[in-house]
Amino acid sequence: MDLELISFKLCPYVQRSVITLLHKSQPFKITHIDLHNPPDWFKELSPSGQVPVLKVGGSDVLFESAVINEYIDDITPPRLHPDDPLKRARHRAWIEFGSSCMRDILSIIEAQTETAFEETRLALMRKLERIEPELGAGRLFAGDDLCLVDAAWAPLFMRLDILGETRNLFEGASLDKVCRWSEALLALEQVQKSVVPELRELYHGMIENRGGEYARLALLPES
Amino acid sequence: MDLELISFKLCPYVQRSVITLLHKSQPFKITHIDLHNPPDWFKELSPSGQVPVLKVGGSDVLFESAVINEYIDDITPPRLHPDDPLKRARHRAWIEFGSSCMRDILSIIEAQTETAFEETRLALMRKLERIEPELGAGRLFAGDDLCLVDAAWAPLFMRLDILGETRNLFEGASLDKVCRWSEALLALEQVQKSVVPELRELYHGMIENRGGEYARLALLPES
Repeated sequence: MDLELISFKLCPYVQRSVITLLHKSQPFKITHIDLHNPPDWFKELSPSGQVPVLKVGGSDVLFESAVINEYIDDITPPRLHPDDPLKRARHRAWIEFGSSCMRDILSIIEAQTETAFEETRLALMRKLERIEPELGAGRLFAGDDLCLVDAAWAPLFMRLDILGETRNLFEGASLDKVCRWSEALLALEQVQKSVVPELRELYHGMIENRGGEYARLALLPES
Repeated sequence: MDLELISFKLCPYVQRSVITLLHKSQPFKITHIDLHNPPDWFKELSPSGQVPVLKVGGSDVLFESAVINEYIDDITPPRLHPDDPLKRARHRAWIEFGSSCMRDILSIIEAQTETAFEETRLALMRKLERIEPELGAGRLFAGDDLCLVDAAWAPLFMRLDILGETRNLFEGASLDKVCRWSEALLALEQVQKSVVPELRELYHGMIENRGGEYARLALLPES
């Protein structure tokens, strides 16, 4: 099955699918576009104007990241989702929860004052504290084997890791298991290879462009 | 299986699950909360603070509306999702697309000027034009039998129908098949019974509270 992902280099959502594909050693092509100046063929393909889009076998097209990642999992056995409907539903719910945490990271970056920065940071920490008790004794979300929740959360932890280099985002939060989970995910080869080598520089550039409190305190040269 | 949906009366997302449950003649309980003043037990249940939440068998809890609706479909055969992975993925993608259209309706209601109203209205019409060619000769999304895409879009059409009583939202759009689909959905008993009897009044109240251009032109008494 020919698979082509259309993405842009900073997209954390397509990264989920790249992790799944690398984990399963499934060949695929990835085409990066400039989301701020998308080509006409992309506008034709994507009803929402968003990435990722997945081209399947050259003619079929899928959109919406969670949908794409689950489709990829469906057609490349063994499935990373649990067989039990209730467990599978809970995994899907935590994946959606991870998407809302990704949006919170944008709020942190865009916060314009120290107070707003602290509020958005704490809002994310309170959310991470909701997933902490879901984690067990294994290295990853549901034991030691990678599941789709891991693929969904690794891009989030990668961005928190970059942000954490200059600000301690986890201050005052009780997140021992989340931190261990993040470390285990970021050590995986399929996670490390799921982004372009210049991700860190692109991410710093994006943060600077948003011009928030984080950029002022963390990225600008000390005076 | 004991199923209890936690919702609030205006929520279009829980309505999707109610349609699925009514369609399958599956008994369930629904508990309405005031989302603006949620009880403590709800904050404990919902990691995101959002409705719907589904309690399963009294002790298990699911959150995220698309996840809940798919779980309900999974455990109450026959499944309303296609068996073919690619078709199923496309159905899921159009469900997500429907969610983004629901958010567009809020933008229409909240638009503060005639220009903003027209822009948000046209944005939604352009999106509906993307789903128009997906519709075939059948009454519903994928023929004459209800599928989860139908359950997901019916709440959207119900709200467009209420808004359309005083403003023609479809002006200038080529949406013959979408309009036929909407009519067919709104005529279904499981759709009509999926909301509280006072939905229209509650919806008008919400629109008035948002205080946008639509409320000024459509709801206030003529002078």
